[in-house]
Amino acid sequence: MEKCKITFYPINKDMEVPVGTPLKKAMDDAGLDFDFPCGGRGRCGKCRVRIREGVVPPSESDRVHFDEEELKDGYRLACTLTVQEDLVLELPQEGVTGHKILIDAAERSMEIKPHLQKVHLEVKKPSIEDQKADWDRLRDELTAVKGDRDYSITLPALQALPKVLREKKFSITAVFADHEVTGLEAGDTTDRMLGIAFDIGTTTVVGYLMDLLTGKELGAVSTMNPQTKYGADVISRITYSSQEAGGLERLHKAIIEAVNRLIGEAVEKVGSRREDVYALTFVGNSCMHHLLLGLEPRYIALAPYVPVTGSTQEMNAAELGIKINPAGKVYVLPNIAGFVGADTIGVILATELDQSSEIRLAIDIGTNGEMVLGNKDRMLACSTAAGPAFEGAQISCGMRGTAGAIDTVRLDDDLTYTTIGDEKPIGICGSGLIDVISMMLEAGIIDFRGRIPSPEQLKGNKFADRIVEHDGMRAFLLASAAETGHGKPLFITQQDVRELQLAKGAIATGVQILLDVYGIGYDDVFEVILAGAFGNYLDKHSACAIGLIPSSLEDRVRPVGNAAGTGAKVALLSAAEYRRSARIASFVEYEELAAYPKFTEIFANSLSFPKKD
Amino acid sequence: MEKCKITFYPINKDMEVPVGTPLKKAMDDAGLDFDFPCGGRGRCGKCRVRIREGVVPPSESDRVHFDEEELKDGYRLACTLTVQEDLVLELPQEGVTGHKILIDAAERSMEIKPHLQKVHLEVKKPSIEDQKADWDRLRDELTAVKGDRDYSITLPALQALPKVLREKKFSITAVFADHEVTGLEAGDTTDRMLGIAFDIGTTTVVGYLMDLLTGKELGAVSTMNPQTKYGADVISRITYSSQEAGGLERLHKAIIEAVNRLIGEAVEKVGSRREDVYALTFVGNSCMHHLLLGLEPRYIALAPYVPVTGSTQEMNAAELGIKINPAGKVYVLPNIAGFVGADTIGVILATELDQSSEIRLAIDIGTNGEMVLGNKDRMLACSTAAGPAFEGAQISCGMRGTAGAIDTVRLDDDLTYTTIGDEKPIGICGSGLIDVISMMLEAGIIDFRGRIPSPEQLKGNKFADRIVEHDGMRAFLLASAAETGHGKPLFITQQDVRELQLAKGAIATGVQILLDVYGIGYDDVFEVILAGAFGNYLDKHSACAIGLIPSSLEDRVRPVGNAAGTGAKVALLSAAEYRRSARIASFVEYEELAAYPKFTEIFANSLSFPKKD
Repeated sequence: MEKCKITFYPINKDMEVPVGTPLKKAMDDAGLDFDFPCGGRGRCGKCRVRIREGVVPPSESDRVHFDEEELKDGYRLACTLTVQEDLVLELPQEGVTGHKILIDAAERSMEIKPHLQKVHLEVKKPSIEDQKADWDRLRDELTAVKGDRDYSITLPALQALPKVLREKKFSITAVFADHEVTGLEAGDTTDRMLGIAFDIGTTTVVGYLMDLLTGKELGAVSTMNPQTKYGADVISRITYSSQEAGGLERLHKAIIEAVNRLIGEAVEKVGSRREDVYALTFVGNSCMHHLLLGLEPRYIALAPYVPVTGSTQEMNAAELGIKINPAGKVYVLPNIAGFVGADTIGVILATELDQSSEIRLAIDIGTNGEMVLGNKDRMLACSTAAGPAFEGAQISCGMRGTAGAIDTVRLDDDLTYTTIGDEKPIGICGSGLIDVISMMLEAGIIDFRGRIPSPEQLKGNKFADRIVEHDGMRAFLLASAAETGHGKPLFITQQDVRELQLAKGAIATGVQILLDVYGIGYDDVFEVILAGAFGNYLDKHSACAIGLIPSSLEDRVRPVGNAAGTGAKVALLSAAEYRRSARIASFVEYEELAAYPKFTEIFANSLSFPKKD
Repeated sequence: MEKCKITFYPINKDMEVPVGTPLKKAMDDAGLDFDFPCGGRGRCGKCRVRIREGVVPPSESDRVHFDEEELKDGYRLACTLTVQEDLVLELPQEGVTGHKILIDAAERSMEIKPHLQKVHLEVKKPSIEDQKADWDRLRDELTAVKGDRDYSITLPALQALPKVLREKKFSITAVFADHEVTGLEAGDTTDRMLGIAFDIGTTTVVGYLMDLLTGKELGAVSTMNPQTKYGADVISRITYSSQEAGGLERLHKAIIEAVNRLIGEAVEKVGSRREDVYALTFVGNSCMHHLLLGLEPRYIALAPYVPVTGSTQEMNAAELGIKINPAGKVYVLPNIAGFVGADTIGVILATELDQSSEIRLAIDIGTNGEMVLGNKDRMLACSTAAGPAFEGAQISCGMRGTAGAIDTVRLDDDLTYTTIGDEKPIGICGSGLIDVISMMLEAGIIDFRGRIPSPEQLKGNKFADRIVEHDGMRAFLLASAAETGHGKPLFITQQDVRELQLAKGAIATGVQILLDVYGIGYDDVFEVILAGAFGNYLDKHSACAIGLIPSSLEDRVRPVGNAAGTGAKVALLSAAEYRRSARIASFVEYEELAAYPKFTEIFANSLSFPKKD
């Protein structure tokens, strides 16, 4: 079969593929962490690449998403491109660079008592007077030292036993979880035991390397979730896994490979080996949880939206194809509901919401804004279909929080903004969007219903000349073509404002319904905990100004960073906390918002912006 | 590479191999269950084949084991033959036919309560008012039905759950062991649950297919242990596994493959499928136990002779590569010592020796004669190095109990014998050997020291003319060339008598030492239990006449057939009996005979035959 060569810039990667190969497939095969937000269906127009050498006739989708100038300049959507000849392609910078993620999190105090324990034993050698079998000999010594009986041993450990026992003259370290010996090491290795707490996000996967003996965090690693190329959000991945043959298996393998890669990176950072890692914990939303474990996620997305499990699940790492110490175990935190996952359990564990006397509200803002309201006596949780606006999707110039994203905006004498990495702007991320909308509201460039007035109506307003027509609708000019990194102007369109209203309205609706069901008002909420990296970047005044968070609670807002990840760390360092997570999952009451009688009314009321006093 | 074709008769198998391939390797590759008693070292001369077409120059070993006539007739040892051209080979009949084995055994009464249980559940469907996750829903139903809490589920079962639950409208059968759900089946399948009890012998592997619901035996299957081609006895297999690269792995795989084959055969016999088999139990001597589990057997054969484990070991069938229901489990009975294995535990379980008030002696006669003496208060076990004489090895015309083997002999007016399968004799098996020696003793053709007198000394004895010179020593003519199946005469040589003396002396020594240690005499022994097929074929009068069993106990001898296999069945049908086997293993005291102070003296005294009254 005839082959073509593809060269990718700026990463300088070459590959050969048969003529007629879809570029998406080639990029998957090449292992590029490239983003196809709509799952490669030619809809979102985000997967743009530029042809530097070679001829590619524009597709129908290309004609929708690019103008004649751009098409002439070689811009094409990667998802509809089929390779017919040798090509040199340029990848957009944000498609291949790392994300800005928050890996520090407020730590809570806790007792360190991990799932696996190690004990060093000096075992008495057998003799003709004492012919006890190797395992019985070891077990009796273990029983003597630990004061516990009924230890069992796994087959792989039993297979290793005779050799390991004799390697250092019957000086041996036993690794065990509960009453099962899962690993054996020659000599005394009780000074080495690492673990990794993973937070599997829809977009980003983060792993925290922990010393299981001291509880110290040794480092963090992160990568883009490689499943992104099969769909940016939970729903498109569920669709992919259900409708594509082998889809579930492919998504499952992709995340397992990413986890294995991150483990390798993490141990390399501290000069350790995979074999020093004995335990992993995982949090993630229900869909990420299911794909990690190879569980069918289809019923999450179909009424009545049930996950496969709402319990903790543990297994040998090898069962999942995860490469750590052969004795290594995996502990997965439980889901609360189809759209309130183990990541929310992580937030509760991290913030100890379940042990609080005061009533607190924890919100994790993302594509689905999950929230929990309550205290030790009662907890309510819900998920709101906020949509991906806060992550930059569905917004005309939206992008994730990577280099070149506008992340804060001020409208004072003039319009000023900052960008991530101090680069020329190429789009706007969630925190920037909330900022600019709140500023536009304050400056009167949006009314409380979300409408952008005409330049005529704004006569006298110093930003009136920024109101233009764009794509057949009214828009606010954020940055001119001259200012931007890609030479194209950035706008906030009327449609963008509507998208933001839907997103913030969804979250405000969730808060309102939880308060209603709980039977309390704003004043009863002691604290609003903002979980997730986004909470740290968010300007809380802006968030309150647009009505994302009730204004009366502005002073009680506390961002806690990646609390879900902290929860994973807590469950890694303490078997008791992990077991507590199972109790939390069955204790939290899940509220299906759409089934709430006054849902439509509350949602409609939440779409408007707060009127200015 | 140039290839040669080999054709095997009488099984009509063809194969192609590269020039220069050792015939042993070719036969291994072809999957022939051919017997190399000495492990293929050209020593024992038992692996004879006959060249029907093609030229093979005789090897040095061939010249030792065959005379000119035989060499001319094309007889060669398979183990030293290298294939240099196309060959047509004839395999001896006993090398490829099935063995005579005993698969019926005295059953004992017991309560049937297998390890795995099934329960059918009609699970309530989820709704928007009841969004409990699939597993939590199932677990709560299971808890309600069984009145037990804290059920967990394996990852494979969890992965199967959403589909299986919806296959028959939330009617589902859960398979569980202890508190772990290991399998799920749509609808009500509680009427189907099979198990197989395996007895892994050094020579023969037997599997008993059992209905786990009724306890009924549905059939039995057996095959030659395929490890035989790597060595006939325990020691040569330990040597092979320790000294050949990948040896342990090869022996392990060979037995697992045989087990998988037998499972297929067993279920086919009754029109079932592998998926209907949920549990397996295994007994075997310590070496077979270790090779089954892939455990290093080397330390069994090195002082102080310790096995890797003396405890029960359970695992998922899949962990061992055994193909049954994915939820299937394997339960392996414990060893007592390096040379007293799980088969002896099986004998104790089957005969309830551990619950007996009277003191009983159980003997399993084989290459290693294992025996247990005692009752519920104390049990002693030992292993005697009887050697393979009772299995026909080391005996000039010895063979295993297959077609054409002389199995009973009488010396009355004339010499008469019977053969297995009523065929012309081609050798003698263990029971025939004991018979003929006892008859020769009675007829005065052997004195009590085991010496065969000269024809002159026997003048007047009607069998005197059967005393001849053979292979440079005195011998007794058992069958003339004209009578035999292969046209060669059969003899009992002076050396054969010596081999038998060593074998029976070893066993008698074991009995004597156990009695001494226990502090009792023959009269205190209530019963002598002969376990193993051999016990059934043995003439107990002959056995006592040669001193294998003390004459005073002749009336108390009870053959029980394959009691080890019965023990495996008992442990399969009852989890409680399986757990009891672990207690038995730690309760039995193992006596190392060679370390017993008066060992040499007792052994020397045991070599002679009992003097006639």
